[in-house]
Amino acid sequence: MTILLYDLVGSDPSRPFSPHCWKARMALAHKGLEFDALPTRFTEVAEVEGGGGRTVPVIRDGDAVVQDSFAIAEYLDDTYPDRPPLFERQSGRALARFVESWSQRTLHPAIVRATILDIHAAQDDENKAFFRTKREKAFGKPLEQVQDGRTEEKRLAASKSLEPLRATLRNQPFLAGERPMFADYIVFGGFQWLRVLSTFQLLDDGDPIADWFERCLDLHGALGRQVPAAA
Amino acid sequence: MTILLYDLVGSDPSRPFSPHCWKARMALAHKGLEFDALPTRFTEVAEVEGGGGRTVPVIRDGDAVVQDSFAIAEYLDDTYPDRPPLFERQSGRALARFVESWSQRTLHPAIVRATILDIHAAQDDENKAFFRTKREKAFGKPLEQVQDGRTEEKRLAASKSLEPLRATLRNQPFLAGERPMFADYIVFGGFQWLRVLSTFQLLDDGDPIADWFERCLDLHGALGRQVPAAA
Repeated sequence: MTILLYDLVGSDPSRPFSPHCWKARMALAHKGLEFDALPTRFTEVAEVEGGGGRTVPVIRDGDAVVQDSFAIAEYLDDTYPDRPPLFERQSGRALARFVESWSQRTLHPAIVRATILDIHAAQDDENKAFFRTKREKAFGKPLEQVQDGRTEEKRLAASKSLEPLRATLRNQPFLAGERPMFADYIVFGGFQWLRVLSTFQLLDDGDPIADWFERCLDLHGALGRQVPAAA
Repeated sequence: MTILLYDLVGSDPSRPFSPHCWKARMALAHKGLEFDALPTRFTEVAEVEGGGGRTVPVIRDGDAVVQDSFAIAEYLDDTYPDRPPLFERQSGRALARFVESWSQRTLHPAIVRATILDIHAAQDDENKAFFRTKREKAFGKPLEQVQDGRTEEKRLAASKSLEPLRATLRNQPFLAGERPMFADYIVFGGFQWLRVLSTFQLLDDGDPIADWFERCLDLHGALGRQVPAAA
């Protein structure tokens, strides 16, 4: 049975943008599993699969419902062990957690500070209001003040904060080594979020991270390129 | 045959301090391999095993000579596959490289900026001069100006930069999961360097990183505690 992926979109259902949903999409493709993506807006997240959850991605696979991108990846490896692994062994999962923790605290804030108005602009009117209310409450200030990361000084500082990733990718094609695994998709999700929503250029051309991102976009039948970059 | 570890020391040969040598010590202990540590001063590094190398740790294992802590860990896993693994599979090595890259660019600079005068003070006169000349050339300023990281503001910033590690260790006992692997020893090396050389407190009591470090000090017959903390 085809797996169902609840996938965050804005006003254009053909442009899924959530970094976490992209992690799940790439994980499903990596496993070679068929899936249907169900476009889901911010305001619809609370109703997914009977309600109660606060975030997507969520997948339904037969009777199983799994929420959270990392939990989905673990579920897929546990449930489909004969397909290409997303993690190797127990330490592979544990170390991918460190990658997730680093990505959330380094890459994601840099993207939010540079593009939160683009995220807002991609929503329909109802979801614009929903997003603004939620995020302004969380940040304690207007979205227009949250987006303060586009100066060249701040862009360079954000890029510099990615140096641990950059140095690693100078010496190996993927974070997980010769071949991509879920650790790669964790960081890919962030850059794809940026690519789909914004024309803001965080990385310089020729950056090893930019080269790695292009390699990731080529994976699984160029799944990531099915959504054109923001223009 | 017992493995020989060339191990960096200062004026007191019983207090090895190098973060990279501590990674190798922990890796050898993890594998359950007997080793003799040969105290080596900065000025002696260039003569190790016939000369030509610029850094320790170096190990000699029979006819094999291996330089660099990560290469040593890989060598030990390749050579002694029936002993407890330091990495799991190819992706385990690749992801440990990311941990190494992060540790070098986040933890190590914070320690250097807070303790470089302690490192200097731990050397004999010849090595004090050697260390000062080398490091002042690298930094382009006197050691007394390099050590600018002890204000409460800078300590808090350094501690905050470790949040990706802290968040991970809130949810799992070791970086590699339920049990420590080389990824843990990579970061342990940095904190042990600080512990052996300096009384500077980077972390607050109760920090999950501090708790993890105590667990690491307990490993392998409390190997790390064989050298008392600086006083």
